[in-house]
Amino acid sequence: MADDLAKKGMELRTKLFGAKAAAAGHEYLKEFDEDFANFLNEQLFGGIWTRPGLETKTRSMITMAALMALGRGPELRVHMRGALNLGITHTELKEMIFHLSQYSGVPTAVEAMRAFREVTEPKKPKA
Amino acid sequence: MADDLAKKGMELRTKLFGAKAAAAGHEYLKEFDEDFANFLNEQLFGGIWTRPGLETKTRSMITMAALMALGRGPELRVHMRGALNLGITHTELKEMIFHLSQYSGVPTAVEAMRAFREVTEPKKPKA
Amino acid sequence: MADDLAKKGMELRTKLFGAKAAAAGHEYLKEFDEDFANFLNEQLFGGIWTRPGLETKTRSMITMAALMALGRGPELRVHMRGALNLGITHTELKEMIFHLSQYSGVPTAVEAMRAFREVTEPKKPKA
Amino acid sequence: MADDLAKKGMELRTKLFGAKAAAAGHEYLKEFDEDFANFLNEQLFGGIWTRPGLETKTRSMITMAALMALGRGPELRVHMRGALNLGITHTELKEMIFHLSQYSGVPTAVEAMRAFREVTEPKKPKA
Amino acid sequence: MADDLAKKGMELRTKLFGAKAAAAGHEYLKEFDEDFANFLNEQLFGGIWTRPGLETKTRSMITMAALMALGRGPELRVHMRGALNLGITHTELKEMIFHLSQYSGVPTAVEAMRAFREVTEPKKPKA
Amino acid sequence: MADDLAKKGMELRTKLFGAKAAAAGHEYLKEFDEDFANFLNEQLFGGIWTRPGLETKTRSMITMAALMALGRGPELRVHMRGALNLGITHTELKEMIFHLSQYSGVPTAVEAMRAFREVTEPKKPKA
Repeated sequence: MADDLAKKGMELRTKLFGAKAAAAGHEYLKEFDEDFANFLNEQLFGGIWTRPGLETKTRSMITMAALMALGRGPELRVHMRGALNLGITHTELKEMIFHLSQYSGVPTAVEAMRAFREVTEPKKPKA
Repeated sequence: MADDLAKKGMELRTKLFGAKAAAAGHEYLKEFDEDFANFLNEQLFGGIWTRPGLETKTRSMITMAALMALGRGPELRVHMRGALNLGITHTELKEMIFHLSQYSGVPTAVEAMRAFREVTEPKKPKA
Repeated sequence: MADDLAKKGMELRTKLFGAKAAAAGHEYLKEFDEDFANFLNEQLFGGIWTRPGLETKTRSMITMAALMALGRGPELRVHMRGALNLGITHTELKEMIFHLSQYSGVPTAVEAMRAFREVTEPKKPKA
Repeated sequence: MADDLAKKGMELRTKLFGAKAAAAGHEYLKEFDEDFANFLNEQLFGGIWTRPGLETKTRSMITMAALMALGRGPELRVHMRGALNLGITHTELKEMIFHLSQYSGVPTAVEAMRAFREVTEPKKPKA
Repeated sequence: MADDLAKKGMELRTKLFGAKAAAAGHEYLKEFDEDFANFLNEQLFGGIWTRPGLETKTRSMITMAALMALGRGPELRVHMRGALNLGITHTELKEMIFHLSQYSGVPTAVEAMRAFREVTEPKKPKA
Repeated sequence: MADDLAKKGMELRTKLFGAKAAAAGHEYLKEFDEDFANFLNEQLFGGIWTRPGLETKTRSMITMAALMALGRGPELRVHMRGALNLGITHTELKEMIFHLSQYSGVPTAVEAMRAFREVTEPKKPKA
């Protein structure tokens, strides 16, 4: 069953981040601690993200909402890339940022805007 | 234009909370400060919540995600009631809570579970 | 010197909270831990709050701003009472809440509004 | 009325950040999303910052207090620059940081100290 | 393997909270969502808390430190009760609170003090 | 007595960070504000960290737990270095991070993992 979850975890991560980034992310976590890497792959990505009851796209939106509200910049960038791969549009990301500026404060929206710009315009220098 | 936004704000709040709670909420805020009450009605509910580009249901989900992540208990309860009025299911709320337990921590999920129970089982005593 | 700071601490607390509440607050903290109670009285109230370079009223405002932004409800209520004793007006408190709604999010403003109502209209039931 | 607020917003931002930085900031936000940029200019800077009842300098102090408490480094730097333009002194900023170390924790004060050093000693390398 | 983790989870929770509270806690979570309840029992209590490399007492201390820093009052109370069952002393809890007042701010320490008082002096009314 | 605390503060910091880093850290803080630097040295390091009732190693663990939970990256790195000097093992740090991922969220654990890698593998480029 752990094997099954591990497989589902890598499939979900591949859907979000692409095969290469999914594998690299897992390797990077394993270099730190193999058990923690497996926990995240099997329980978080394989177990939780693949549960029925909420679409992957909706899971991506609420994940980004929480990351933006909490000011978790690097993880927000990772999940914005995932969101774009899932087909979430630029407009949807912008609306999420504008909307949540009122719930977690404008500074979290400005930080999310910086993340959005980096993720969508990678060639432009970060302002 | 302010009148138009005010009207749209009350319509949106009515859709979320019902006519009675929407009106009572606005009165309660006006007792504190009329300008702040109008800002929230016109700019937040009338201006932001009604923008195209993101469905009301999605706005409800990301709002709850941010509130849960930040540990804003009373506002989470208010928006869970709104979510149920929009047709968001118990299953969707439970999945959101389970999913976000990994992003904002299990204690925020346990607090959201308490909110869920109060909102969905109002007759049971709060544990 | 510790005696001097202790005296200055109680004087500052008396100015903020009145003699009775200042003494009761200190006793309450001493029941928990005498050293921690003395640290707060001597270092925080006697040492920091009485420093020149920033007026007591300004210290009260920034203290409330931080407490509101962080969602520290009980301490916000304590310092709102102190602010009123210092002559900070209802209007100033309302403006602070309205203003910061954009920096820490509307839910922190709504919680601060509840604190304001409790502190300024003690006879009304909490909504 | 939106035009009036827009004008007041740019005036307030010019007072805080200078004409060049105010214009550049607005352009930067517009590149992301024009409606969000206008919301911030009209509602936040034009509407809220210019309200009577609280001096601009006091608004600057409570804004920085909230940003420091929440650990919003980039925005704290922006508003520290604004504070210096308003005539808030180095001593006042240092006292705010020292004071709030007790309310949001010493690590937020150390981060605010880094912001202060960057803003006041731009030629020195960041430690 | 899930059965094994479930057993280990209930054993760990019994050690922390006593058999009755452990069972009641699990039932309460199951009423909300059986899968989430099992995830917490198997993965968090059975899988993570029982890992070698860190003593249970140390896990209790860092759990309380995180809960205090984040202002999670109800969960802090639960884990303070667990800490007392593990043999963590009143003095150790007080020192943790005093020490962390400097890292997460005095208001988080005052809230933790309230939790400590409720947990150690259950007959006294909450101040 | 202030002299005594100052001496104890530098001794404690030397134990944590080494003589050179302890002295440099104090100088750096003094360049900002001498009184704040002395407050931290005397009250925090000399007064609180040296109190009996909790071992230095335990104080280090709960300090890191709070810093990780609050997402205070730079200070977490400083105290991870201190922890290694105190003899806290790589395994203990990894277990702390894995354990707290459930209390403050996986993103705080990933950020702590980055801190761990920088502190323990300084030659490797930051990922």
